[in-house]
Amino acid sequence: MGSDAAMSPKITVELLRQLRQAMRNTKYIAEPIQAYIVPSGDAHQSENLAPCDCRREFICGFNGSAGTAIVTEKHAAMWTDGRYFLQASQQMDNNWTLMKMGLKETLSQEDWLISVLPENSTVGVDPWIIAADQWKNMSKALAGAGHSLVAVQDNLIDAIWMDRPTRPSTQLLTLGLGFTGLTWQDKMTALRSKMAERKISWFVATALDEIAWLFNLRGSDIEYDPVFFAYAIVGMNTIRLFLDIKRLAVPTVREHLQLDTPSKAELSVQTAPYESVFTELQAVCASLGPKEKVWISDKASCALTQVIPKAHRTLIPYTPLCLAKAVKNATEIQGMKMAHIKDAVALCELFAWLEKEIPKGTVTEISAADKAEELRSQQKDFVGLSFPSISSVGPNGAIIHYKPLPETNRTLSLNEIYLLDSGAQYIDGTTDVTRTMHFGSPSAYEKETFTYVLKGHIAVSAAIFPNGTKGHLLDSFARQALWESGLDYLHGTGHGVGCFLNVHEGPCGISYKTFADEPLEAGMIVSDEPGYYEDGLFGIRIENVVLVVPAKPKYNYRNKGSLTFEPLTLVPIQAKMVNTDLLTQKERDWVNEYHRQCRETIGAELDRQGRKEALDWLIRETQPIA
Amino acid sequence: MGSDAAMSPKITVELLRQLRQAMRNTKYIAEPIQAYIVPSGDAHQSENLAPCDCRREFICGFNGSAGTAIVTEKHAAMWTDGRYFLQASQQMDNNWTLMKMGLKETLSQEDWLISVLPENSTVGVDPWIIAADQWKNMSKALAGAGHSLVAVQDNLIDAIWMDRPTRPSTQLLTLGLGFTGLTWQDKMTALRSKMAERKISWFVATALDEIAWLFNLRGSDIEYDPVFFAYAIVGMNTIRLFLDIKRLAVPTVREHLQLDTPSKAELSVQTAPYESVFTELQAVCASLGPKEKVWISDKASCALTQVIPKAHRTLIPYTPLCLAKAVKNATEIQGMKMAHIKDAVALCELFAWLEKEIPKGTVTEISAADKAEELRSQQKDFVGLSFPSISSVGPNGAIIHYKPLPETNRTLSLNEIYLLDSGAQYIDGTTDVTRTMHFGSPSAYEKETFTYVLKGHIAVSAAIFPNGTKGHLLDSFARQALWESGLDYLHGTGHGVGCFLNVHEGPCGISYKTFADEPLEAGMIVSDEPGYYEDGLFGIRIENVVLVVPAKPKYNYRNKGSLTFEPLTLVPIQAKMVNTDLLTQKERDWVNEYHRQCRETIGAELDRQGRKEALDWLIRETQPIA
Repeated sequence: MGSDAAMSPKITVELLRQLRQAMRNTKYIAEPIQAYIVPSGDAHQSENLAPCDCRREFICGFNGSAGTAIVTEKHAAMWTDGRYFLQASQQMDNNWTLMKMGLKETLSQEDWLISVLPENSTVGVDPWIIAADQWKNMSKALAGAGHSLVAVQDNLIDAIWMDRPTRPSTQLLTLGLGFTGLTWQDKMTALRSKMAERKISWFVATALDEIAWLFNLRGSDIEYDPVFFAYAIVGMNTIRLFLDIKRLAVPTVREHLQLDTPSKAELSVQTAPYESVFTELQAVCASLGPKEKVWISDKASCALTQVIPKAHRTLIPYTPLCLAKAVKNATEIQGMKMAHIKDAVALCELFAWLEKEIPKGTVTEISAADKAEELRSQQKDFVGLSFPSISSVGPNGAIIHYKPLPETNRTLSLNEIYLLDSGAQYIDGTTDVTRTMHFGSPSAYEKETFTYVLKGHIAVSAAIFPNGTKGHLLDSFARQALWESGLDYLHGTGHGVGCFLNVHEGPCGISYKTFADEPLEAGMIVSDEPGYYEDGLFGIRIENVVLVVPAKPKYNYRNKGSLTFEPLTLVPIQAKMVNTDLLTQKERDWVNEYHRQCRETIGAELDRQGRKEALDWLIRETQPIA
Repeated sequence: MGSDAAMSPKITVELLRQLRQAMRNTKYIAEPIQAYIVPSGDAHQSENLAPCDCRREFICGFNGSAGTAIVTEKHAAMWTDGRYFLQASQQMDNNWTLMKMGLKETLSQEDWLISVLPENSTVGVDPWIIAADQWKNMSKALAGAGHSLVAVQDNLIDAIWMDRPTRPSTQLLTLGLGFTGLTWQDKMTALRSKMAERKISWFVATALDEIAWLFNLRGSDIEYDPVFFAYAIVGMNTIRLFLDIKRLAVPTVREHLQLDTPSKAELSVQTAPYESVFTELQAVCASLGPKEKVWISDKASCALTQVIPKAHRTLIPYTPLCLAKAVKNATEIQGMKMAHIKDAVALCELFAWLEKEIPKGTVTEISAADKAEELRSQQKDFVGLSFPSISSVGPNGAIIHYKPLPETNRTLSLNEIYLLDSGAQYIDGTTDVTRTMHFGSPSAYEKETFTYVLKGHIAVSAAIFPNGTKGHLLDSFARQALWESGLDYLHGTGHGVGCFLNVHEGPCGISYKTFADEPLEAGMIVSDEPGYYEDGLFGIRIENVVLVVPAKPKYNYRNKGSLTFEPLTLVPIQAKMVNTDLLTQKERDWVNEYHRQCRETIGAELDRQGRKEALDWLIRETQPIA
């Protein structure tokens, strides 16, 4: 993500000179350091970054979502993965070496440092933007080779970044019970009962979406993510919220947090400046009893994690907030359904409009994405997009993380497949949907591969599985039809989706990568998005957001209960792209039942909104297939 | 596994008194220890144990395959998993507390020790039978609570075990090229090239099956596993083999290892007593250059692992021998096929015999298993069983690791399902097959669930998947049909199978447990064994051993190539148990093609061996289903 950038390299000679000077400047460090690591993240390990946190992009020019830069006295190298090899090579000048992760010959950051550093070197990093476990691994590897890793408190990129944007402090939005289903006080009580259950005295919240969820507040500090910069420390009788204090001047926010009239002492929120979290956590830790434990995410920053003495520190892969947030309550589910209905209305309009406009040859990837945004923005409680639209024609569709730029912008036509992966934030919910369409006559091969992808999509969506099943066990269902024909796709099948929160959230997902995903539960919401990509020709992806719901199969083994998915996304899947001979009767039934729901639910809303052309399009596109 | 035991508890009062005395005896330890851990394993982390290594069974009476005993001054506790709760509670007297692993309320060994030990306690364990990583975790947890873990060199169980059997030293069998496909010298050269590739100077082999495979030798030191007690240390110019030197008196063994006339210096095998591995490894490590590295499995014993200084130690989850052994060469594949043909001949005979005998009411679980063994033993190059036969009738079939004992022995009848999971060691290969049969009229429910299991078996066996796919990604295919009806089974779907080696081997498998399995490759051999178990009524399992082979689907995505499975097991699947209405046409075709292969291949061999009745049975049982 990050900001737009033309695909010409950034000139970094002068910046590197300045950074190397800073690496020797006793204003920042007691002794010169021989290397400086610039990680990708912010202090909250956010997936998307505010402009002030795009330090790696600033120093090397590469603005992809993943990458780590390391600068030594003589070298500058940047590690990124296969999605970004081309982009990084275009955005970085020849002062930089691109380190292609995943290739056998590519050294790890540790091994590279060891290979280029003089003996007994010191490597610096900002402890606020490196996670505690990454620090530990790097520190260990360097120590094994006689070097040392040190925390540099002043960020050296910030020191040389003259026009660095300030940290955003956007207006906070308070969410009432009608949107959240639970007051923040209810959530606090639930959190504390989890803490009591595990004998935990304090919990440190560092992930921005968890803090936003806990307090029923939203912001817009980071593009696409409705979050705000903050930390929280919760004890059994104490709540401390760290954020830009100016934000609390707004009466609705003061009232929402009951800052002036707390109902009960243990629900009284003490607010403090964002930066003071460090000293406040130190104070909390100084007063800990011998057996008291503090919960913190294992993805939290090294700086904050190390404040907590080891004997008192309990690292957790998923915090209780992350787990609670993932299981949507009835109000949130209702909101997500409403958001998806509005989103489907906008997309039906878009596709009806595209059908008319494409033959004129005037619609491009960018203008189609803009039109989609315009149509969504007409819907109630629209806030913004949930991620940059992937609007791609023909060969651009095969670039999985494609984002149209003026120099790559293709015109939509009757001859090429169009793939649109887009979504929005509404106050009642977050959407993410991909449809792949052909506005002329698709080839037999395009239809064949589309149909395999559809079979995979259905296999996941219609799967019935026992309570307690982890999402990664469903991933192969999405690939089975492709595999049978020797095909595959090189990404996961689904991710958790927030409710008016981040479009990517943990702890569940559907992926062949066996990261530690948590078992699926009724109320969780994930995407189901298999694809197929033919390099240089086209890309296909069919994505619905789906809700985990109880299933009632014939039997109930050991009273465990079963689960399945209910699609929240209700946008027709283009029948023209389907080779129905390749579908089983069950699959045809699924498509027809899905389209019946689209027609019924979205048709009613289109009718209510008086959007006649889109309604006609919807009715035509949802005719039963044979 | 272990030895048979009646289901009455072992009286352990006196033994525990003696062990507690030993825990204070300065003959074994400088200072008294407050707790002693008795792990399950031997010094090679073998799955099955020689009688002299059944120390946990000796001290507590429980003889299941998994369990750890811990004795303190006042308490004695034994941890095991759900498979063994009943058995352990029957085999242990009330001096012991059964710790049921997997239940929420059950403390871990560490937490239990911390809860019962006086302050500053010392906990002892034999470093030879605890793996290095287990030692590390236990040691850390105890240290965190002010206790310490110490290595007790003399095993305290051995000290009180008066009639402890001696370590077996069976006659070694040398395998020629006709069985192995590669000389041990070839294997040594391949190992060294892997070592050179990763800049490794020495490799320490500790797993018994890896050593047997490397040297093309077999033994019978452990029941069911054709292995022998040994270690090996391999350098670029040195081969050291540690074993009972008396075994080398046999001329064929001396010649096989070229002990008297080595062809080249670097292929000269230096032999030394089994026990001397420790001092020899110390000597090797004392002479290491500053950058030299030693490879050892992360499952090796703590004692041996800690001989290697940390800076020189490279722990690996799967050794190059484990990986090379898993991919069978053409000769091994041919041998495995031959072994499975012979095994199928014996089973066809068995089932034809059962059909005749069961109505007489004289066949029991034990006598059926004995008959199967007798019939197998008539086949060429039969060595023994590959595991204790699971011969189970009706409700006993629902006990997944059932082994018939006189007091549980049921009679086969026309009214109950019979499940037989059995296999053998032949010099050319190892077998493992499960068939579930009804000799009367199965109920609709029995047929329905059998058919779901069959659908799962076929889904895995017929799956096509990309090269590089890990086995755990196929596990859900085996469950899909069961899940759809709300059913499941609580075990993995498949394990690696050795070639005249252990019937369970790494590094590949098919399981929902995402242990670090290695990608499937052509030449690997695994089992495919979904099941369904109805507690108190019946058990169903359909197991074939299958070979990973290249597949040739329509397309070839990114030239990655595809794989599928070829069944090596060729024993009819009882058509009477199948509800053909629940099968797709593809599945019916699979069954008919499988039965055609059984008829053709096993029919020819039955004919050659003149086993007429079994041939008639085979022909009848392999008629196409409609």
